[in-house]
Amino acid sequence: MNSIKSLKNEISKSKLDAIFISSVPNIIYLTNYSHFSQHEREAYLLITQNKNYILTDGRYSEAVKNKVKDFELIEISSKNPLIKILKNLKTKHNIKKLGIEEDNLTISEHKSLTKHYDNTYHYSGIKLLRDIKNQNEIKQIEKACKLGDKTFKYILNKIKSGVTEKELAYEIEFFVKKQGADISFPPIVAFGRNSAIPHHKPTDEKLKKNSIVLLDFGTKVNNYCSDMTRTVFFGKATNKQKKMYQTVLEAQKRAIELLNTKYLILNTSKKSIKASEIDKVARDYIISKNYKTIPHSLGHGIGLEVHESPRLSPKSKDILKPGMVFTIEPGIYIPDFGGVRIEDVVLLEESHTRLLTISSKDSTIL
Amino acid sequence: MNSIKSLKNEISKSKLDAIFISSVPNIIYLTNYSHFSQHEREAYLLITQNKNYILTDGRYSEAVKNKVKDFELIEISSKNPLIKILKNLKTKHNIKKLGIEEDNLTISEHKSLTKHYDNTYHYSGIKLLRDIKNQNEIKQIEKACKLGDKTFKYILNKIKSGVTEKELAYEIEFFVKKQGADISFPPIVAFGRNSAIPHHKPTDEKLKKNSIVLLDFGTKVNNYCSDMTRTVFFGKATNKQKKMYQTVLEAQKRAIELLNTKYLILNTSKKSIKASEIDKVARDYIISKNYKTIPHSLGHGIGLEVHESPRLSPKSKDILKPGMVFTIEPGIYIPDFGGVRIEDVVLLEESHTRLLTISSKDSTIL
Repeated sequence: MNSIKSLKNEISKSKLDAIFISSVPNIIYLTNYSHFSQHEREAYLLITQNKNYILTDGRYSEAVKNKVKDFELIEISSKNPLIKILKNLKTKHNIKKLGIEEDNLTISEHKSLTKHYDNTYHYSGIKLLRDIKNQNEIKQIEKACKLGDKTFKYILNKIKSGVTEKELAYEIEFFVKKQGADISFPPIVAFGRNSAIPHHKPTDEKLKKNSIVLLDFGTKVNNYCSDMTRTVFFGKATNKQKKMYQTVLEAQKRAIELLNTKYLILNTSKKSIKASEIDKVARDYIISKNYKTIPHSLGHGIGLEVHESPRLSPKSKDILKPGMVFTIEPGIYIPDFGGVRIEDVVLLEESHTRLLTISSKDSTIL
Repeated sequence: MNSIKSLKNEISKSKLDAIFISSVPNIIYLTNYSHFSQHEREAYLLITQNKNYILTDGRYSEAVKNKVKDFELIEISSKNPLIKILKNLKTKHNIKKLGIEEDNLTISEHKSLTKHYDNTYHYSGIKLLRDIKNQNEIKQIEKACKLGDKTFKYILNKIKSGVTEKELAYEIEFFVKKQGADISFPPIVAFGRNSAIPHHKPTDEKLKKNSIVLLDFGTKVNNYCSDMTRTVFFGKATNKQKKMYQTVLEAQKRAIELLNTKYLILNTSKKSIKASEIDKVARDYIISKNYKTIPHSLGHGIGLEVHESPRLSPKSKDILKPGMVFTIEPGIYIPDFGGVRIEDVVLLEESHTRLLTISSKDSTIL
């Protein structure tokens, strides 16, 4: 419940009377209860200086009563709809200024809310808290990354002539789930020219000798995600493929080296690095080798969500700070030929960077 | 592409110059391309009277080029951000009135959009199209329901002393995925008193003799969902449990009977039934037997989304019409004792209703 305490400080600083939380990852962050649907609106939090409310319907109230301890449950129902509950809470707590998540709440929801709340303000304080992972969060991400590495080892043995992309994707998913964990997103498995599509959806295509195999997958342990990509050659790689691979590997290495160098030369008290600089060093290296620019960001934060702040991209304004966990994943994609991506999760510690995914990257010629 | 044609008619009727689609199920409905994340914003459609655009980033552009035929792809990138693309399209097509999905677009996204588009209007026409399923959609839902029935048969054999809720949930998921399909939501498996929580999350609890086993799960075939619930007794049911079961079963039967009766007495030309009436007959029956009211809706539409329009609930304004597909799922839940829910998918045809899930409901005493 430390996150709630930090949040209360945040609220008082921002001069809001209460904040209204609708985003599911933020609800998980603050309550530790993670069974609400990610697709539908099933719960909200309203947090004032003195009181925490969780608003949900009868499908969840028994579970919430048992598991969410520091929140008072108010049940949403046909007779007690959300808007009535919010009206009552406004009166009860004399809420004049309400913080809302403008990047989560829909226009319709906002229209309905403003029937009673005239003054709403964008509140993004939880994002700031979530950006810097605490020791427990890091422990969970480490577990998820370790399971990712274990899964990669397992799946390497399943790469055989005739296996399909879908079958390998299932194998990844089943393996992760048999360990009592979850996947953090549907695994990407791409053979040959399909690997030129960064977010390829696995097909029934069968693996042939001398093909690229791109595997991008993640696990979720106690709500925290991992994410990793390895590209391996099944059979022999051509020189063109080898050059692509070495270029991507070197681009990743340069990004990580720059992170470490910046750390060494920066004074401890003001350790911060522009995310866009790290993106640039990898991106520029790839372009310098006569490839097209990476058609996605170099990396993204990871935690309760598989993609979260910070963003490592050319236009990112994010600053990298100790306690942040993010991916570094350069890639080269040549349409109708194939692609290579290598992705690891990096933790910025106080004195250095640490890779949380440690699977081999020697392009494993099988 | 019939859906696009209907949409064009809709746009012209609504006097909008274009509509901007952001919801993933609506994007799937109009493009048939289903690999965008459900959690993150990765694509948009902009549809004018003469032209269809799909806006997405480099991770998807190769796949979209190959698979989405009636749309022109515009790639979102750091150099060509969404807002710039929209500005250009506004000028090119002289778009003055833009339809947007106010129940999907966030406040932040809307603020950004209104930098260039002063006149935005809520557009919900696609919902109206999606409410009435066409023959192909019905075929896919039928397949998903059939696979649900097959899965239920399979899982009945796995219900044994000592098995855990999580294990059964995995078995359901693995079985569905081995058939090349997907699950439409994480299966709910609840033993004994856990069945009193309508949306229980499976635990490591082991099954003991003489327990309720509640199974609520769905499959997804070619993007279309099924959803079903069965409650079975593992061992002997007590009289209290039997009474609960019979009450729920009878409530469901009465709801379906009312649907059929209404159909018979209504003139073919104006076949329509209030969703709230169907909810009421089941709900009132349960209350008349001295149970608490159902703590959720009696049912929900199903299609590309597992929960969609229409809603069968006390306050619903929805009208049930031929071509609609929805669930009927009354339930009784007694905290610390247990619960019973029975759920089937119903299709409203021209002359009668048809159950698409047909698994046995004889409370299968094992």
